Amino acid sequence: MTASSPAPVLPAHTLDAFHRGRFHLLQPAARGHRAGMDAMMLAAAVPSAFAGRLADFGAGAGAAGLAVLSRCAGARALLVERSDEMAAFAEATLVHEANVHLAGRAAVLRADVTLTGKARAAAGLADNAFDFVVMNPPFNADADRATPDALKREAHVMEDGLFERWMRSAAAVVRPRGGIAVIARPEQAGALLDALGGRFGNLELKAVHPRADRAAIRIVLRGVRGGRGKLAIQPPLMLHDTGSDRFRAQADAINNGIASLFGD
Amino acid sequence: MTASSPAPVLPAHTLDAFHRGRFHLLQPAARGHRAGMDAMMLAAAVPSAFAGRLADFGAGAGAAGLAVLSRCAGARALLVERSDEMAAFAEATLVHEANVHLAGRAAVLRADVTLTGKARAAAGLADNAFDFVVMNPPFNADADRATPDALKREAHVMEDGLFERWMRSAAAVVRPRGGIAVIARPEQAGALLDALGGRFGNLELKAVHPRADRAAIRIVLRGVRGGRGKLAIQPPLMLHDTGSDRFRAQADAINNGIASLFGD
Repeated sequence: MTASSPAPVLPAHTLDAFHRGRFHLLQPAARGHRAGMDAMMLAAAVPSAFAGRLADFGAGAGAAGLAVLSRCAGARALLVERSDEMAAFAEATLVHEANVHLAGRAAVLRADVTLTGKARAAAGLADNAFDFVVMNPPFNADADRATPDALKREAHVMEDGLFERWMRSAAAVVRPRGGIAVIARPEQAGALLDALGGRFGNLELKAVHPRADRAAIRIVLRGVRGGRGKLAIQPPLMLHDTGSDRFRAQADAINNGIASLFGD
Repeated sequence: MTASSPAPVLPAHTLDAFHRGRFHLLQPAARGHRAGMDAMMLAAAVPSAFAGRLADFGAGAGAAGLAVLSRCAGARALLVERSDEMAAFAEATLVHEANVHLAGRAAVLRADVTLTGKARAAAGLADNAFDFVVMNPPFNADADRATPDALKREAHVMEDGLFERWMRSAAAVVRPRGGIAVIARPEQAGALLDALGGRFGNLELKAVHPRADRAAIRIVLRGVRGGRGKLAIQPPLMLHDTGSDRFRAQADAINNGIASLFGD
C-alpha cells in the first residue's frame, strides 16, 4: 500500500498488492469503492481450469477481473465500468509496470451494464460474446448508507431491480453453457435467486461466515447459462477460527489466488 | 419401532419413539409420509422458551407439533392435517397411553391450510389465533416422484405456488410478532423467500448438511410476522463428522429435543 505516481491525471491513489504481489491495483486513495476480499472471493468462483473470455461487470479498478487472469492462464478479461473515474483507474492499473504480465489479456470498456438490446451491443457488449461473467454489483441497501461520498455511494447503493437489470445483461452476453458468478449480501439472496431464475441454472450458493458461530456476511452465487440443475447450497467458507483474527488456511488461499471458492 | 394395536380402525401401523421415548407416533406402516428427522429439526426451530398457541400445518401424524410440546412446557399445539387418514393417525397418537403427558395440550384439526378468507376461519383457522406456525410442506418436486403411492405423493409433491398459499394462510393466522418456521429443500430457497417476503421478516436461514464437505440436504427458515429485519444466514448444521455415520453431538441433541436449532 505505498503511494505511487505513474499517471499524473489520476486523483490521489494507492498502489495495492493482491495475490501476494502477483498483481497490483491503482485505486482512489480516500474516495470511492476500494477493492478487497470481496473481489478476490468473487474471482475465486471461476474454476481454476477456466479458459476463454470473461467479462467483469462493474469492474471498478479491475480487481476481480485481474484476479481471474492471475489464477487462470487461459483467461482473457474485459473490465466493464460505467464510472469514468473508476475506468481511468482500471486503465492506469493495466498500463502499470507491475501488471505487465497480465495486461495483454485485459481491456477496459466504459459502458453501463444495464443497457439493453442494440444499445448494449453498440456499447461493446455483444450477445453470446463471453464464456463467463463475474459481477460485484453495488450492494449496500439504502439504509446502510453511512457516508455522503458520492463515488462510494454510486458503487455501493443497490437500487431496486438492479439485480434484475444486471442479470438480464449477463444472460444476453454469456454464451449458452457459459458461467455467471456474483457476490452479494445474505439478505439479497431472494432478489438474486429471482433474477438468476430462468436464465442461469445449476446454481451453487456459498455463504461466507466470519467465524463458524457467526451469521454469514456475504454470499457468492454461481450458475450456468441455460443449466437445468437445481440450486445447491455448498459448504460455507469460514474466514477465521473462533477466537483468532488470522485467516483460516482455506480463506487465505482463496484470498491469494491459490485456491478456488468452490473447489474446482 | 414395535408394532402396536390401540385403535382397530387404523390401517397397519407402527409405534415409533421420538425424543428418546418422551413421546411416540402412530404412523402408517408402509404407506404415506413417515415422520423423522425433518419434523424434529422443524420443531427445534421454535425457541425453547416458547409458550403459547402453535399450529402445525400439514401435521401428518403430529411429529413436529408433539416435538414442540415435548420441549416447550408452556406450548399448546393444533395439529392441522387435510388427509383424513393421516388425521386419524394423529388422533390415535394423541389418545395413545405413551403420550398422555402431552395430549392435554394438543388437538387435531382436519382442514386444508390453503383455504382462504372466511372459509379458512370457518374451518377452524381464525385470523391472529396463533403465536407460532410450523410447517413441513409437501416438498418433493414433481421430477422427484419415484413412487406411485398416492398417500406418499400427496405428502411429498410440491405443487406450483403451494408455498405461496401456505404462507398466505400462515401470515393470516399468526398474530403480529408471532413466529413462522418451515423446512424445505435447498432448491426451494427462492420460492420460499418470495412467499415469506412482505409477510415475515427477521428471517433466519439454517442449512443442514450431511457432512462439512457436502451440499445441504435441507433448509430451515424462521421469521417473525411483520418483522423488518433482514435475512440472516446462520451457521449451518452438520449432521455427521466426515467419515462417520454417527450424529454429531449437536445434531443428536436437536433430534432428541435437548437443543434448539437456532440456539435459543
